[in-house]
Amino acid sequence: MKYSQLFPKTLKQAPSGAESINHQLLVRGGFIDQLFAGSWTLLPLGLKVVTKINQIIREELNSSGAQEMQMPLLHPREIWDQTGRWSNKDVQQIMYQFKDIHGREFGLSFTHEEIVMNLLGKFVKSYKDLPLKLYQFSTKFRNELRAKSGILRGREFLMKDLYSAHVSEEDMYIYYEDVKKVYLKIFQRMGLDTKIVEASGGVFTDKNSHEFQVLTEVGEDTIYYCTQCDFAENKEIYQDREGSKCPRCSNKIEEANSIEVGNIFPLGTKYSKDMKVFYTDENGKEQLIWFASYGIGPTRVLGTLVEIYHDERGIIWPESVAPYQVYLVGLDLEGERVKGEAERVYKLLQAEGVEVLFDDRVGVSAGEKFADADLIGIPYRVVISKKTHSTSSGQAKDKLEVKKRDEKNTHFVSFKGLISLLKDS
Amino acid sequence: MKYSQLFPKTLKQAPSGAESINHQLLVRGGFIDQLFAGSWTLLPLGLKVVTKINQIIREELNSSGAQEMQMPLLHPREIWDQTGRWSNKDVQQIMYQFKDIHGREFGLSFTHEEIVMNLLGKFVKSYKDLPLKLYQFSTKFRNELRAKSGILRGREFLMKDLYSAHVSEEDMYIYYEDVKKVYLKIFQRMGLDTKIVEASGGVFTDKNSHEFQVLTEVGEDTIYYCTQCDFAENKEIYQDREGSKCPRCSNKIEEANSIEVGNIFPLGTKYSKDMKVFYTDENGKEQLIWFASYGIGPTRVLGTLVEIYHDERGIIWPESVAPYQVYLVGLDLEGERVKGEAERVYKLLQAEGVEVLFDDRVGVSAGEKFADADLIGIPYRVVISKKTHSTSSGQAKDKLEVKKRDEKNTHFVSFKGLISLLKDS
Repeated sequence: MKYSQLFPKTLKQAPSGAESINHQLLVRGGFIDQLFAGSWTLLPLGLKVVTKINQIIREELNSSGAQEMQMPLLHPREIWDQTGRWSNKDVQQIMYQFKDIHGREFGLSFTHEEIVMNLLGKFVKSYKDLPLKLYQFSTKFRNELRAKSGILRGREFLMKDLYSAHVSEEDMYIYYEDVKKVYLKIFQRMGLDTKIVEASGGVFTDKNSHEFQVLTEVGEDTIYYCTQCDFAENKEIYQDREGSKCPRCSNKIEEANSIEVGNIFPLGTKYSKDMKVFYTDENGKEQLIWFASYGIGPTRVLGTLVEIYHDERGIIWPESVAPYQVYLVGLDLEGERVKGEAERVYKLLQAEGVEVLFDDRVGVSAGEKFADADLIGIPYRVVISKKTHSTSSGQAKDKLEVKKRDEKNTHFVSFKGLISLLKDS
Repeated sequence: MKYSQLFPKTLKQAPSGAESINHQLLVRGGFIDQLFAGSWTLLPLGLKVVTKINQIIREELNSSGAQEMQMPLLHPREIWDQTGRWSNKDVQQIMYQFKDIHGREFGLSFTHEEIVMNLLGKFVKSYKDLPLKLYQFSTKFRNELRAKSGILRGREFLMKDLYSAHVSEEDMYIYYEDVKKVYLKIFQRMGLDTKIVEASGGVFTDKNSHEFQVLTEVGEDTIYYCTQCDFAENKEIYQDREGSKCPRCSNKIEEANSIEVGNIFPLGTKYSKDMKVFYTDENGKEQLIWFASYGIGPTRVLGTLVEIYHDERGIIWPESVAPYQVYLVGLDLEGERVKGEAERVYKLLQAEGVEVLFDDRVGVSAGEKFADADLIGIPYRVVISKKTHSTSSGQAKDKLEVKKRDEKNTHFVSFKGLISLLKDS
């Protein structure tokens, strides 16, 4: 992609009122645009990052035996009445519920347990049909009282939601523990170090759930965790205070702020009982289906990555989710020789399968191009200029000037050297 | 994917009240499931087909210079008030509009012109920022009075919508004509022969639009077209009747039913004028942006393909959009030798990058497996059985029994032969 064609260009200033770093940098970099508080357009660069986040999730969930599908967003009240959640006061605070012009009541999806259970009821007959692991990437809606923190808390956002159905509590917990490992791997591939934290089940279940928390000062959550063992609880359920003894190993409990990027719920048989969804066991007897759900918010991950990976100049994307691998800067493009060389390197990189954003702007200073490169945060900056491609430049001749976004120094590298650098990383 | 693991299995019977072929076959084959009238879950097989449809659209639009992004579905009333469409009676019949618990008014997107124009207003300053071509794949909502014809007419459906912005009417029409060609190519790659038909602009514009129509008796639209030239008009605007003389070439006009799979609208300056969105021209003067929009309904394409490509036994997917390339049938899987051979071929095919659905069910008859293969409609059926892999089967030894879905006869082909057959197709 040529930067001259990319929509939109970077902004010099963050929008007024943008307090969080992810809000400031994602808007300035041209990744997202706010429609109204809590509602965001994923601009081309932002969609590229989210697509990579989604693909990592997809690969790991498919490996775990899960199957992707896509469910509707507009839910008839009747299905939500079956579990009583339609009329739950906490649900009504966050779920958009309305009547259409014919008087029919609908809610906008903030989760899909009822819809999945309805689907299972149609297709699951016998124990032979279980276990099932079904997921989707879909838009979710939450009528947040205050939508702040940039893209971390939206009224409309993207969610990967996975649901699993089992013959027994034991089988449910085997997969539940599998998903914990799968989630840790997913987040690790994106560059996020997550801690598994026990929390309340919210409007989903009376049981406790588990959250995947990224420790950072700007996080809205507060967690208490042991520095020696894996004990960690969300403030909602933690009964003690910082400095107390860990109930498991007696070491010291610390307090930290964190961002929740994933959560998993061992729902048990509540939903199948309420919705009367059974399977027939090996003895021909009807049994309730055991059920669990698992969420990751890809748009929240987008914001979290920026909170974790940035400096005073802009974003520093981990290579696995960067919108492009290389930010190719053409300087002195008024000269035909350099311009031709920059175009040539651009095409060669593409031919090698490298994703390149080529800053081909003419009449824009080196300083401005470098500032945009740093703001947008692509892992490798490659410069073509008189210095690299004049006939009299000595050492630098026919070499590319390469700088990693998170390093200070530039290196002169041959085209082949750059390709092996990119493939090794 | 092993068929034993696939969710869900085929159904023996179409649901009661399913009148259209696409409804019957897509539900029986396990591609889609109805949540309520006009609302469908894309089950794993259905999502696979839609993903391929989307990828064809994406490739061709990217080639045309368009950029993908993703806009919100929940739209504040104020933006739609700027064009007056919020209060348009025809719009109010189809747009879900409601107040949230805080009294704020929202509508669910059935299209995105206002949202795109709002975005352009923030980022387009000068003629140098134009033209722009932006598209998305997103969920659309329409409160249809009667949602019938299976997945052809939904209350919630998938739409690819493209918007282009230009400095002049001339530039707008250049891209508008480009998109006509791009659309014809997109549909042709999916196996759909489309006719470009002039139609009214509906709630989008006073100007006429163009529809991409697939001629089929089951189509809800009626069109009049010339058998000799490219004159074609939708019944809504056609002033004459069947058998009349073509106004362009005097040949005979015929009538046909058809399904609209795409539509394009030369919107002009109506939206930029209403929303006060200008660019500065080369002389520093403010000018209105010229604007056009272009839609394709991937879920409607899914249904249309089934209406066109089926026989009495099931669906016959074009290879470009088939959920898998090969339906591998293992027969006599009770025998260790055949079972091992079937597993081996399954893995070899996957290693070659072939998408395989492996019917690995034990205790299911050959007839039942062949019936499911025909119903699901994957292009190549490959059978492994005692016949193909016993030590005494003569000619068939170590060959695979291959049948194309749209042919009657089977052929015995070596593994290498099958691979070259698949790669050539």
